[in-house]
Amino acid sequence: MSKVAIVGSNTSKFRKETSSLLEVSCEPCIEILRENPIFKKYIDGIILSTTSNAQYGAAIISEYLDIKPKISQGVDNLCNSGTNAIITGYSLIKSGLCNTILVIGADDTSTSGSKLEWDLSRGNFAFPVHWAALFAKKHIRQYGTTEEQMALIASRNRSNAVKNPSALFRKKISLNNVMESKMIVQPIKLLECSYVCTGASALIITSEENAKKFTDLPVWISGIGSFTSTASFGNLSNNLSSIVSTQLAAKMAYKNSRFTPKDIDVVELHDAFSIMELLAYEDLELTTKGNGGEYAEHTEKLINPRGGLLGSGHPLGATGVAQTAEVFNQIAGKGGRRQVKSCNIGLVHNMAAAGSSSTVLILSR
Amino acid sequence: MSKVAIVGSNTSKFRKETSSLLEVSCEPCIEILRENPIFKKYIDGIILSTTSNAQYGAAIISEYLDIKPKISQGVDNLCNSGTNAIITGYSLIKSGLCNTILVIGADDTSTSGSKLEWDLSRGNFAFPVHWAALFAKKHIRQYGTTEEQMALIASRNRSNAVKNPSALFRKKISLNNVMESKMIVQPIKLLECSYVCTGASALIITSEENAKKFTDLPVWISGIGSFTSTASFGNLSNNLSSIVSTQLAAKMAYKNSRFTPKDIDVVELHDAFSIMELLAYEDLELTTKGNGGEYAEHTEKLINPRGGLLGSGHPLGATGVAQTAEVFNQIAGKGGRRQVKSCNIGLVHNMAAAGSSSTVLILSR
Repeated sequence: MSKVAIVGSNTSKFRKETSSLLEVSCEPCIEILRENPIFKKYIDGIILSTTSNAQYGAAIISEYLDIKPKISQGVDNLCNSGTNAIITGYSLIKSGLCNTILVIGADDTSTSGSKLEWDLSRGNFAFPVHWAALFAKKHIRQYGTTEEQMALIASRNRSNAVKNPSALFRKKISLNNVMESKMIVQPIKLLECSYVCTGASALIITSEENAKKFTDLPVWISGIGSFTSTASFGNLSNNLSSIVSTQLAAKMAYKNSRFTPKDIDVVELHDAFSIMELLAYEDLELTTKGNGGEYAEHTEKLINPRGGLLGSGHPLGATGVAQTAEVFNQIAGKGGRRQVKSCNIGLVHNMAAAGSSSTVLILSR
Repeated sequence: MSKVAIVGSNTSKFRKETSSLLEVSCEPCIEILRENPIFKKYIDGIILSTTSNAQYGAAIISEYLDIKPKISQGVDNLCNSGTNAIITGYSLIKSGLCNTILVIGADDTSTSGSKLEWDLSRGNFAFPVHWAALFAKKHIRQYGTTEEQMALIASRNRSNAVKNPSALFRKKISLNNVMESKMIVQPIKLLECSYVCTGASALIITSEENAKKFTDLPVWISGIGSFTSTASFGNLSNNLSSIVSTQLAAKMAYKNSRFTPKDIDVVELHDAFSIMELLAYEDLELTTKGNGGEYAEHTEKLINPRGGLLGSGHPLGATGVAQTAEVFNQIAGKGGRRQVKSCNIGLVHNMAAAGSSSTVLILSR
C-alpha cells in the first residue's frame, strides 16, 4: 500500500486573546498557500480539528480559502483532536478517496473543553490540574520522584519556547522560578500547568505519488498508534503511575512503524502538566517505569523543542497538529533556530482527559 | 484492496422531546449489541456523527458501552455529518488502522444547526426554508413544475413513514392535506418541511475478512462520492435549478462503484424539503434535468421507503446514518413491513446547507 507524507506546515502565533475560531483557523492555511500556491490546485480534503462548536467549520473554511474539496469534516476528540484529524486525513488518502488534505487544528480560549463538567466521577475536582496532582503524588510516593525533577521539565520547556516564534510564552524561566510559583494543587505549581489559549496549526498531507511533485524531502507518516481506555477519571486505572492509553498507543505505533524507542531523534509529547511529561517518558518507553524523574535530569533525546504545551500554550484542537508540525519541521530541516542537526525519525504523543485516550504518530525521513 | 461491509444497524425512535445527547446516542448501540453480542469483542473504532457540541462524545460513549476502541472521534459536517462519519469509518478500515467500527449518528432538538446564523449572505433569511423556496420558484418558472408535484412527494414520504416504527410522523397524509397546510415561505407549505428532532441511528461496518464471521449476507459499500461546493448560500450557484455538489458526488460514486443509475433498486435521498427530493431525482441522474416533477408522479424506483426526512424527522447528525441503515436493511432483507422484494443495489444521498456539500454512497449485495 502506498505511503502518506507530510509536505507542508504552518503554525499561527499562540495568544491569550479570543478571536473568531474560523478566522484563526485560516491563519496558518493562508501562510501555507502563500508559500506554496501549488497546493491549492491539489487539496481535495479539508479536516478541521477543534473542540469548539464550529458547526460546518471545515466547509466554511473551504469557502474562505476558495477551495472546493471532495471531503470536508470537523473532528473532535478533546485535547487529542489534532492527531485524530491527521489519522482521518491519512486514512482518506490510504483509502484512495482523497489525494491531498489540508489538516487544520484550531481553538480559542472560549472552548468549554478545559473544564470537564461531564465527568461526574471527578466530583468537585473538575479541572485537569486535580487529576494531574493525583498522578504526581502517586509517582512521588511510589518512585521517590522529586518536585524539582518535575519543575526542571517545566523550566526546560518554557526555555525551549524562547526560540519558537509561535509560542505563547517566550521568556526563559529557571527551576527556581517554577518551584517558587504559586501552588495550585499540591504538588503542582502554576508554572507546571499548560495554558489554554487561542491558536491554529495546519499541515498538508498527501499520497506518495503527489509528494514527489511537491518536495524533494517528504516526511512519511510511518507509524500510528491510538487507544481509548475510557473517558472519565473514575474508570481510568487502579494505578495512577502509568498512562495506560499511551502505553498501548506507543506499542501499536512502534510495531507498525518497525522503529524502536532507540531510533527516535525528536519527541513532541503532551506535557499538559510537568508530571505528564515525566510519565510519558516511561509510557513511550524512552526509559523504564519509575525512572522518569531521573530521565528528566539526563534526557538523551530532543524533547518538546517547540516548548511543548507548557511553553507554547495549549489551544486544545490545535495542539496535536502543532506538535506534528514541529516534528515534521525538525525532520525536514525547517526547524529554524530550534533545528537539531541530525533528525531522521520523530514521535508525536497527544492525549486527552487525564490520558483516557492517546495517539502516537511516528514520522520519518 | 479489500472491501468494507455493513453488517448491523439499529435506529432509535425519532421524537420531539429533547434528551441527553449521549444517552440518545447509546440507544441504537445497545440494541445492536443486545442482538449481536459478538460485535463488542471486535469493535476497535467508534465514530460519532453529531452537530451538537458533544466534546469527547465518542470516548464517553465508548465508556458507556464498556468498549475500549483504538480510535474514537466525533465528526461534524452539519446535516451531511452522518455519511461523513461512515466515510471516516470506511477509510479507517481501508487503511488497516481499524477492523470493525461502530458508527453512530445522533442529535437532539437543542442543536443550533437548524438556523444558519453564520451565513451572512442569507441576510435575515437564515432558515433553510428560505433557500428551499428559491429553489422551488426557480424550478417552477424554468420547467413548469407544479406545487402539486412537490406536494405529492411530501404526501408519499409521510405515508411511507407509517410503516417505519422509528419515524417521527406515523399518520398517512393526502396530497390535499399538504396543499392545504400552512404556507411557510411561498411556495413551500408546512407539510413539505422536515422537522428537526431528537434521534439516533448506528451501524456496524467491518473489513471483508471480519464480515464473513458476522453474517452470510454482508452489504458492501461499493461507491463513495462527496463534494463541497461552498458553505454559504450566496456562493452556491448562479443557477438554482441544480444541486451542484450532489451532481458531482453522484458522478464520483457511480464511477467508483461501476454501477449506473439504472442499476439502483432503492434510494434514500435528502428530502429536507419536498423540492429538494425533486431536484435530487435529476441530480442523482434518476431522470433528466427538468423532468423531476414528472418523475415524482411516475417514479420507477423505491424512494425513501423509511419515510425520508419528511416522514422520519431530521435529527441532523443522525440522518445520514439512518438513511444508510435503511438501504442496508432493504438489501439485507431486513426491511420489515417496508421490505421490497428484489433489492440488490441502493443509493444514499445526504447533504447540508442548501446542498453546499453532498455525499452519495452506493451499497450492494
